[in-house]
Amino acid sequence: MPPDSASTLLRKQTLPAHIVVREVGLRDGLQSIDRIVSTSDKIQLLQSLYAAGLRHIEIGSFVPTRLLPQMADTAKLMEAAYRLEGLETSVLVPNLRGAQTALQTNARYLMVPLSASHAHSFANLRKTPDEVVAEVGRIRAERDSRGSTMLIDGGVGTAFGCTLQGHVAVSEVVRLTQGLLDAGADRISLADTVGYADPASVREVFEAVLRVAGDRLWCGHFHDTRGLGLANVLVAMELGVHRFDTCFAGIGGCPHAPNSGGNIATDDLVFMLESMGIDTGVDVHALLEQRKLAATILDGEVLRGAFWRAGVPITFSPPARASAGGAL
Amino acid sequence: MPPDSASTLLRKQTLPAHIVVREVGLRDGLQSIDRIVSTSDKIQLLQSLYAAGLRHIEIGSFVPTRLLPQMADTAKLMEAAYRLEGLETSVLVPNLRGAQTALQTNARYLMVPLSASHAHSFANLRKTPDEVVAEVGRIRAERDSRGSTMLIDGGVGTAFGCTLQGHVAVSEVVRLTQGLLDAGADRISLADTVGYADPASVREVFEAVLRVAGDRLWCGHFHDTRGLGLANVLVAMELGVHRFDTCFAGIGGCPHAPNSGGNIATDDLVFMLESMGIDTGVDVHALLEQRKLAATILDGEVLRGAFWRAGVPITFSPPARASAGGAL
Repeated sequence: MPPDSASTLLRKQTLPAHIVVREVGLRDGLQSIDRIVSTSDKIQLLQSLYAAGLRHIEIGSFVPTRLLPQMADTAKLMEAAYRLEGLETSVLVPNLRGAQTALQTNARYLMVPLSASHAHSFANLRKTPDEVVAEVGRIRAERDSRGSTMLIDGGVGTAFGCTLQGHVAVSEVVRLTQGLLDAGADRISLADTVGYADPASVREVFEAVLRVAGDRLWCGHFHDTRGLGLANVLVAMELGVHRFDTCFAGIGGCPHAPNSGGNIATDDLVFMLESMGIDTGVDVHALLEQRKLAATILDGEVLRGAFWRAGVPITFSPPARASAGGAL
Repeated sequence: MPPDSASTLLRKQTLPAHIVVREVGLRDGLQSIDRIVSTSDKIQLLQSLYAAGLRHIEIGSFVPTRLLPQMADTAKLMEAAYRLEGLETSVLVPNLRGAQTALQTNARYLMVPLSASHAHSFANLRKTPDEVVAEVGRIRAERDSRGSTMLIDGGVGTAFGCTLQGHVAVSEVVRLTQGLLDAGADRISLADTVGYADPASVREVFEAVLRVAGDRLWCGHFHDTRGLGLANVLVAMELGVHRFDTCFAGIGGCPHAPNSGGNIATDDLVFMLESMGIDTGVDVHALLEQRKLAATILDGEVLRGAFWRAGVPITFSPPARASAGGAL
């Protein structure tokens, strides 16, 4: 492979055949909205996302109910998810106690969030980043002692800066990534929790983290707070990342990062990728229907995204599906 | 220069130092809005854009007043523009008659729109694309006979598809580009008039046109209809294009292409580029103020863009200015 091949991915002949769009609206999205969506409405949303072709969905989080009552029914939702064939689920856990609950479910991934910004780490988790690294070590030991094959995903948040602390050094993101891997994380995700990333910083941070994590750098999680979400995905994809988080209807944010919402809208990213000829396994027309359901259930909430306003171009045709499993 | 250097532009060390953001809101934007903005309000908008640092501004168009009454005061606005030092102006003309009027002004560029989509060409200009090419020949002869140095910019619209016709062949875009250059156009711009472009098609079409136009391919004009505008700029920039059109407050569209609005918001593009360390000469804070003025003048109209909602990150610092001329 020539040294510059990563940067030529966007040439038509070398585009990736398939990109995983991981839907995190049921977790990142609904936790950012004050109202508590009923379990039956959540199940409807989950089923509509699955029907559109999404096969990687974050279901919720195992956090104390008094802190995030919106996530109290995550175990029930996991039961509904289990009935959807071929669905790969993830749940967020902030600590060992949450992980112990998660390990009783059928989730494929257990996502442990860490904030590279120390200020955000305290505000969001009441721990230093290094205390989170130590907790991941305990979670790994617990998982292994149970003989579970659930994968531990270390999510490095505020990796591009923070509304509380300001700058976050790339070296700190790299150090914490190494710490998470040493402590036993199987995967690393990088998150732009507050929408500060731009295409140049995405390249800088992802290149640095790829040097220590290699193909264990698993996922890019971008907020579209300032409209740069899709451009940021493009650069990370050029570097070889093939998995990205999105939220249906562009919801999402962080309760401890003011003005941080929302994530990239699922329909925006699926539309961009499928237009480029990259298979996501997701049907854009079905996603537009899903969005209407979400708008009804979340009536009155701020929804985001651009694609839905104009809809599907008359020239659009979806790419060949990479596998039957990912298709409708 | 190694053959692959164009595709490594996004690496921090090789980012372009400067990108020209050309403001086309006074033309593309205001022509798409039914109301007729008063000349004094337009002058206020022009001055606010200039004050924010924009030095490349499309002022209006010389088209029959009965067809586009919104543009009737273009000559007056050109007089106001002439008093702004260092401002490089352009005007759109649909034909020789318009060009004759334009040649009496101090505009730097005379932009002649051509639609690569034959259906859109008829709807918008009542001519075939080849008739427009022939008209550019007559405009070139007229310019030369007057000894004018005004540059003729052939704007190839619907270059990525069309809401009326559907697909537009890349070979047709290339053929018409060659035709425009042969007829005497000094510059070529490529426009995604209806928001159908995606990063893969941008690469395909720009690469093909670069092969015939070289550095006479001057400008990328993207609508942000489906949220892909900034990602599209990124790819064109990677190929070496260093000039992009935007509209203040994300207005813009085409009267003969339903559902086509709006252009990339000026503040969104300036924010992305300056965040990446690329000098635009434009102050993002001043642009946010400019947006407020636009929102007052255009009260009730649909404005677009993402950056303004969340505003300037606390970590933001503008890049070094490439030249005093482009700075505030």
